[in-house]
Amino acid sequence: MIDLKFHCDIDASELAVQTNSAEKVLDEIKTDSMAGWVTLPEDYDGYEPGGENLFSQNGEDAEKRRAVYKEEYARIKKAAEKIQNDSDYLICIGIGGSYLGHRAIIDALDGQLKSNTKVLYSGNSISSVSLQKIFDEIEGKDFSINVISKSGTTTEPAIAFRIFKKKLIEKYGEKEAYHRIYATTDSSKGALYDEAVHNNYERFVVPDAVGGRYSVFTAVGLLPLAAAGVDLDKLLEGAREEQNGDHSNIYKYASARHILRARNFDLEVLASFEPSLEYFEKWWQQLFGESEGKENQGIFPAASVYTTDLHSLGQYMQQGRPNIFETIITFENDPVLKSSITVPKLEENLDGLKYLEGKDLRYINDKAEQATITAHSAHIPVIELRLKDLSEKSLGSLIYFFELSCALSAKFGGVNPFDQPGVEAYKNEMFRLLEKPGYFENA
Amino acid sequence: MIDLKFHCDIDASELAVQTNSAEKVLDEIKTDSMAGWVTLPEDYDGYEPGGENLFSQNGEDAEKRRAVYKEEYARIKKAAEKIQNDSDYLICIGIGGSYLGHRAIIDALDGQLKSNTKVLYSGNSISSVSLQKIFDEIEGKDFSINVISKSGTTTEPAIAFRIFKKKLIEKYGEKEAYHRIYATTDSSKGALYDEAVHNNYERFVVPDAVGGRYSVFTAVGLLPLAAAGVDLDKLLEGAREEQNGDHSNIYKYASARHILRARNFDLEVLASFEPSLEYFEKWWQQLFGESEGKENQGIFPAASVYTTDLHSLGQYMQQGRPNIFETIITFENDPVLKSSITVPKLEENLDGLKYLEGKDLRYINDKAEQATITAHSAHIPVIELRLKDLSEKSLGSLIYFFELSCALSAKFGGVNPFDQPGVEAYKNEMFRLLEKPGYFENA
Repeated sequence: MIDLKFHCDIDASELAVQTNSAEKVLDEIKTDSMAGWVTLPEDYDGYEPGGENLFSQNGEDAEKRRAVYKEEYARIKKAAEKIQNDSDYLICIGIGGSYLGHRAIIDALDGQLKSNTKVLYSGNSISSVSLQKIFDEIEGKDFSINVISKSGTTTEPAIAFRIFKKKLIEKYGEKEAYHRIYATTDSSKGALYDEAVHNNYERFVVPDAVGGRYSVFTAVGLLPLAAAGVDLDKLLEGAREEQNGDHSNIYKYASARHILRARNFDLEVLASFEPSLEYFEKWWQQLFGESEGKENQGIFPAASVYTTDLHSLGQYMQQGRPNIFETIITFENDPVLKSSITVPKLEENLDGLKYLEGKDLRYINDKAEQATITAHSAHIPVIELRLKDLSEKSLGSLIYFFELSCALSAKFGGVNPFDQPGVEAYKNEMFRLLEKPGYFENA
Repeated sequence: MIDLKFHCDIDASELAVQTNSAEKVLDEIKTDSMAGWVTLPEDYDGYEPGGENLFSQNGEDAEKRRAVYKEEYARIKKAAEKIQNDSDYLICIGIGGSYLGHRAIIDALDGQLKSNTKVLYSGNSISSVSLQKIFDEIEGKDFSINVISKSGTTTEPAIAFRIFKKKLIEKYGEKEAYHRIYATTDSSKGALYDEAVHNNYERFVVPDAVGGRYSVFTAVGLLPLAAAGVDLDKLLEGAREEQNGDHSNIYKYASARHILRARNFDLEVLASFEPSLEYFEKWWQQLFGESEGKENQGIFPAASVYTTDLHSLGQYMQQGRPNIFETIITFENDPVLKSSITVPKLEENLDGLKYLEGKDLRYINDKAEQATITAHSAHIPVIELRLKDLSEKSLGSLIYFFELSCALSAKFGGVNPFDQPGVEAYKNEMFRLLEKPGYFENA
């Protein structure tokens, strides 16, 4: 269980009332047609490829669903093995929820992963600068493509897919190129599905019952993760512990957010002391921002990496507008490098660091974490989420922790955690400016 | 001049009153002992190394000051040339303002820079994971160090400097190692100054009259930038145009922020459609957050990279809590790759992209920029800052634009733009936890 500690005054009886309602709200959430993610850690999507929706069914059908899951899970691992054997690079093409989850985990485990294949990300902007950077990096190297799109028509990934598919065909010829394209898409319809069937790409499923920002434990996240060398079993084991274990800290986090929101705390900063968690924080921003930022409400999710940002946003956290709160991720143990880097001894003590000589950096970083909590909590509410380590298992737990607490928190605030109607606005306007045929039909 | 356009209702007479006061407030700012940055684009710091403060003086002394600047500027270019000749990597050790400015520019020009030397950044966290990553990258390669610290005793960079200095001596022996250390520090005192004099490191100056977050046009930023291949002349030319040119858009931006703040818009999102501007946005966050976030007020500075974040925070911008505003950086021309990447033609039109075939990505990204402005400005105030291109000159202009508008905006809000008293709180608590001898003297 993710360890949670409040460094702020949250009224105990108010908290109890809210957490006591969580079980009932969770039962409601489970009946939502988009709640497929709730049981993903143990049973994956609710669809047989091309088949009927099994998600909301129980008993015998749950068994069927798990069989589908097992089959795809095995194929994911096999595909990842092939990619590791034949590709220096896997270009993952996707945007939003088809991008942030796996990048969050791969970056967080930076330095721990052993894979011959490096994952690169494209289709998440329209920047030609970003594309050229990838062109330069893969020049003369072997690569494969994982295109991730429910519809296959989202502008950014569709453009990037055209561009990299062309490069792949130029390099390998059509037949071999098609063996190097992995399509993660709808189970039975859509542009990418049709193309994948036609060209015989290996297909994986974006389930109907799981929205993009909740999809990291589907093939959307699992294939890139496996290719990058992430241990999927451990990741899902961690998630499963949160799914089936004691939910009390999840309920407390969701409840505290709701209570703070009611008191006009309208900005939450997620902070950690490991720069490799930068994209994990971006994943968290999407999860909460897209789930809660609607109907003129929401807590704005901002991200911070310490200690660097203590010499930047730290000033604001300490003395700025006080209706913000902070959630800080701390670690018991350094995952990778515990005790391997220490402060060197010097003859002189010009820099005043003699008192730290021989000390492990993890020890010092831990003190920085605790010092920051003490300092900031004098000005704003601070919530500490303490992990045992920075491993696949802990990350799996933390992701599930945030997914469930996010859905609860949105429901507490009276909004639908699973839609994102506002995202369409810029698309429709862009289609108009680009003179897309029939754009107005979607407007 | 940076082009500015309001996509929101800012009352014209209210704006006029505020902008009319700007000239007078700027005159006040110029008398501040920390306003050395105001004239940096044309004359650098106000100190002769080890000498008297020339900053606040005019006439003959301004000439002296410029002579000092010219001498150091020439040494910066010479040192950069040596580094490019003898080092695969330059490890820049610094935190906060001693880190973000040059990283912002180097990242922004990603793909355009030609240098044999890659700049890496350390001393901006206490993460051993981050350190190990650098160890792995420089293994077997030649490197030099640029340690950037006014005092030489800030914990994060001091630790990193001990660690990399030890590596440098192990690799090259003491004598050669000392020729590979460049110290950017106080002109006449402090731990790093003393060590640099004792070991005969080449020294550059962090002027007293320029705070960290305003220091990118001093040696703090210029040496790493030159080593990375940035054209300093063009960068400063751009800044100089804003310094000496028409300030009306700077006054408008500062005034609009002040007017919006008074109407309880308490969060500003800076957004751009080029992912390479991510660190530029972090530099901006420090500049505004640290300058304005004090005395229980301030506008929280948040950062966004589009279009990826349109599939994440975009939902919030479109329908969330409406008391936020957005400043969007757009570009006339693609700097690097104009017309070189286009949407490939395909036989079929499964992905519905036929209408974009042959179109340049810069054209599409431009439409995405304009579409986003139209879409978001229906919900929240949007300010557009339009640059001619993404070049050294444009970045120099934009940096000066933000520095001056930030100082003005802070003054409009009645706070000191140049101090950061809140940053000390976590340091003092950390020293207590680490049992630093005499820590309480600073408390």
